[in-house]
Amino acid sequence: MGLQLLEDRIRTLGIVKDDKTILVDAFLNHRLDMELLNEMGRAWAKLFADKPINKILTCEAGGIALAVVAAQHMGGIPVVFARKTNLVNVDPTVYSTKTLSSSTGKLTDIVVARKALGTGDRVLIIDDILGNGCAINGLIDICWDAGAVIEGITVAIEKGFQQGGASLRDRGYDVRSLCTIERLGAAGDIRFRG
Amino acid sequence: MGLQLLEDRIRTLGIVKDDKTILVDAFLNHRLDMELLNEMGRAWAKLFADKPINKILTCEAGGIALAVVAAQHMGGIPVVFARKTNLVNVDPTVYSTKTLSSSTGKLTDIVVARKALGTGDRVLIIDDILGNGCAINGLIDICWDAGAVIEGITVAIEKGFQQGGASLRDRGYDVRSLCTIERLGAAGDIRFRG
Repeated sequence: MGLQLLEDRIRTLGIVKDDKTILVDAFLNHRLDMELLNEMGRAWAKLFADKPINKILTCEAGGIALAVVAAQHMGGIPVVFARKTNLVNVDPTVYSTKTLSSSTGKLTDIVVARKALGTGDRVLIIDDILGNGCAINGLIDICWDAGAVIEGITVAIEKGFQQGGASLRDRGYDVRSLCTIERLGAAGDIRFRG
Repeated sequence: MGLQLLEDRIRTLGIVKDDKTILVDAFLNHRLDMELLNEMGRAWAKLFADKPINKILTCEAGGIALAVVAAQHMGGIPVVFARKTNLVNVDPTVYSTKTLSSSTGKLTDIVVARKALGTGDRVLIIDDILGNGCAINGLIDICWDAGAVIEGITVAIEKGFQQGGASLRDRGYDVRSLCTIERLGAAGDIRFRG
């Protein structure tokens, strides 16, 4: 069973573009509905209350707001957001990996400063949407490079009809999504799992 | 007088790269110090308590976390963050303008969906750093296009030795920064205004 308020917003404000794509920019990753975000933060803290998480890792830009509200509900632990490369104002000593951006369709380097992540970090990876898992796989690579422990992986919306979530679970990762879309219909209908 | 905790973090964790550049990625725009962010959110709510603000506008990626904490302390009003173009998953009906990114040194288009901003919106523009004001001028252009009223403009760190802040105030905008750096010294010393 997914988070009710999130599923409501998806049904009401989500725009089904085709059978693989739903626009959620009206409340989740462009315009932010703060009531929804705060409820999501609470839900994440509850979902992962059993884990000794001490850092949240996400990727710019869609994941940042979600990571912030999760961190607030998890005792104010720090957030690190991976940045796209060619930045001139970030410490040049970085972990780096390539990832296919679902927002632009382009292969992008993402980087995390070495001082921002290391052994001793027990990480929750958060992102807005999990489809094929490209962005999250990039963040996983960076955690392995840094020697950080991945305690869990979570997203607001998992696309159950794509392979990212299943593949991560097969590899042993603890993936818990706030809601899972089973199917996007051509007529704009949305079916949730559970 | 700037926000004390922010000035402390800048002194302790900021890295002066040259007389125009200071890296604040250890606490403000890569790794996020949540205690600091929450205090900044409180300070923004207090600074602009006299204004009928009903929306916060920022630009990805550095401003998002700051806009979120400000919104939480301002009654949970919505946040909109402008996105870089070539995104495939945002409503294609947008306001758009060009801005010079200080993070990449490149001219970038930023966009806001038309449904996310309009007449009736009374906007507070937030960003992490104000130097020459390129990003903020882009957000101002978008507000004018949308017919939104700009109630105020604020940043965490204003570089008082660059012209962005003075130029915005000359044009009549209400710009209030959480702290202003007067001078970055070659030896790494930082002088704050006030």
